[in-house]
Amino acid sequence: MKCKRCREQAVVGLPSHNAAFCEPCFLLFFRRQVETAIRRQKLFTRQDRILVALSGGKDSLALMLELGRMEYDVTGLHIDLGIGESSRAARAKVEAFCEKHGFPLRVVEMEAEGLPMPLVKKYIKRPVCSVCGKVKRHYFNKVARDEGFNVLATGHNLDDEVARLFANTLRWDTAYLSDQGPMLPETEGFARKVKPLFRLSEFETANYAFLKGIEIHSDPCPFSSGASFTGHKLLWADLEHRSPGQKFGFYDKFLKNAKPAFASIDKEFGATLRPCECCGSPTSSERCGVCRVRDMLADKVCQEQGKDEA
Amino acid sequence: MKCKRCREQAVVGLPSHNAAFCEPCFLLFFRRQVETAIRRQKLFTRQDRILVALSGGKDSLALMLELGRMEYDVTGLHIDLGIGESSRAARAKVEAFCEKHGFPLRVVEMEAEGLPMPLVKKYIKRPVCSVCGKVKRHYFNKVARDEGFNVLATGHNLDDEVARLFANTLRWDTAYLSDQGPMLPETEGFARKVKPLFRLSEFETANYAFLKGIEIHSDPCPFSSGASFTGHKLLWADLEHRSPGQKFGFYDKFLKNAKPAFASIDKEFGATLRPCECCGSPTSSERCGVCRVRDMLADKVCQEQGKDEA
Repeated sequence: MKCKRCREQAVVGLPSHNAAFCEPCFLLFFRRQVETAIRRQKLFTRQDRILVALSGGKDSLALMLELGRMEYDVTGLHIDLGIGESSRAARAKVEAFCEKHGFPLRVVEMEAEGLPMPLVKKYIKRPVCSVCGKVKRHYFNKVARDEGFNVLATGHNLDDEVARLFANTLRWDTAYLSDQGPMLPETEGFARKVKPLFRLSEFETANYAFLKGIEIHSDPCPFSSGASFTGHKLLWADLEHRSPGQKFGFYDKFLKNAKPAFASIDKEFGATLRPCECCGSPTSSERCGVCRVRDMLADKVCQEQGKDEA
Repeated sequence: MKCKRCREQAVVGLPSHNAAFCEPCFLLFFRRQVETAIRRQKLFTRQDRILVALSGGKDSLALMLELGRMEYDVTGLHIDLGIGESSRAARAKVEAFCEKHGFPLRVVEMEAEGLPMPLVKKYIKRPVCSVCGKVKRHYFNKVARDEGFNVLATGHNLDDEVARLFANTLRWDTAYLSDQGPMLPETEGFARKVKPLFRLSEFETANYAFLKGIEIHSDPCPFSSGASFTGHKLLWADLEHRSPGQKFGFYDKFLKNAKPAFASIDKEFGATLRPCECCGSPTSSERCGVCRVRDMLADKVCQEQGKDEA
């Protein structure tokens, strides 16, 4: 297999792009896809202060490295979920990565915030993955607001986005469909949210991380029963195999043809938001959802201590 | 397995409805689904003159029998495609069925119309299934208009509809998405088109045809490489197996939530139509697509005869 660009020996085949690349040309391809995403979707400029959410996985670290090399103003943010050895290992990978490449990093500890995930799992009756997602999004936005970052970037790749779009489409959930995309504009109390890797597949970001020698945290979360949308991702692997390029086409044509239709009927929705009386985050009630979870945990812990003492 | 309704021994299990039925209760279930479709989607009333397209397959004959038993004003229409033994066998099944049940029947022969499918396959450079579909839709509408039927019913079932919706969704083809549904209203030159079996799966219509002892034409068309959307139907069988009821939910929520969104952005499209100078059918050019195919075939046959004589 020859590199499509320079005719050297290829190291990676990309049927979706009807191409194969050697290492330097694959890295150039990766760069071009990120550049195209930033330019066409107007994600950000070199004047923006960008906070990059770093879990320690291949996608977020690949994103950080590439944006840094492109000389964007990037700062990492890691949420330490407090899930024992798993969280310690993830945090260590993120800290080592940022130190190695000279990236500034913020770490927020859920233990210190009164929201460690083991307590959430023990006391909160909702699925822990759902609460964990909510808590992470809350702190992503809070740190961005508190420290003056106007853009929040996450490492969602094409497979993540397609699986989510597919799940929303199966339910024809117009509220989600009108919002889904690689750029959610800044609104009162919320930083702009961007997904610069949305044109790149999971295979492509994994390949980038491998070729760049990034040390990633790849162990699954001990609290999760598996990656989200696993069934949909398998189904899409089959569709993509039958018709290479279909995955990107589905997402890209959604953005061009369908999202405007959903946005046009969904304009009237959206509750009025005000600052949470506790943390100042935008919320439709007096206290935001995350502060309510924190309160519930504190109550439960108090009750348990009461029982122990009785 | 007991019947969900009467607790007798069940003969058919329907996981999508979390139910199993004995024969009489399944037939009642089938009836109720057709009634619900007609009522909720305002398909037609007992005052309408309904032309039912009969291929000879399980779906169209099941539809005809059930609408007849519900005392709607139904007349069958069979298009004899002229594909040798296959078409002779299909036509014989339709004629025997209508005679047995006392249904009036129109038959239009493509041989006599100068459009036999073997010639289409031989001379027309487009996929024969695509031209055949166009020709059938043309004569469905022409017979309806010429003979004063205001409603044209076809036997499309839930699996057909979901596979088509899924194909249109993968491409986010808003022109098709804004139109797809169980009822396309009457417009200038076009009869109302309805699909009263859209709430029933392929398995359910097959089961109905079997229980009713309908003799069906089940051989695949010799010109087709297989049923349309086979890949999508397999994929949906898997989705339905993982989450029973999802297939109907996808279609039903599309109609409720998404179709209005596509219709709202697609209003401005649609070419101006005028009557075909040859057959009077609505068309955007001077001669309609089917008359153009007929002309091409006549030219080709002439040329061949010229060669033979030379």
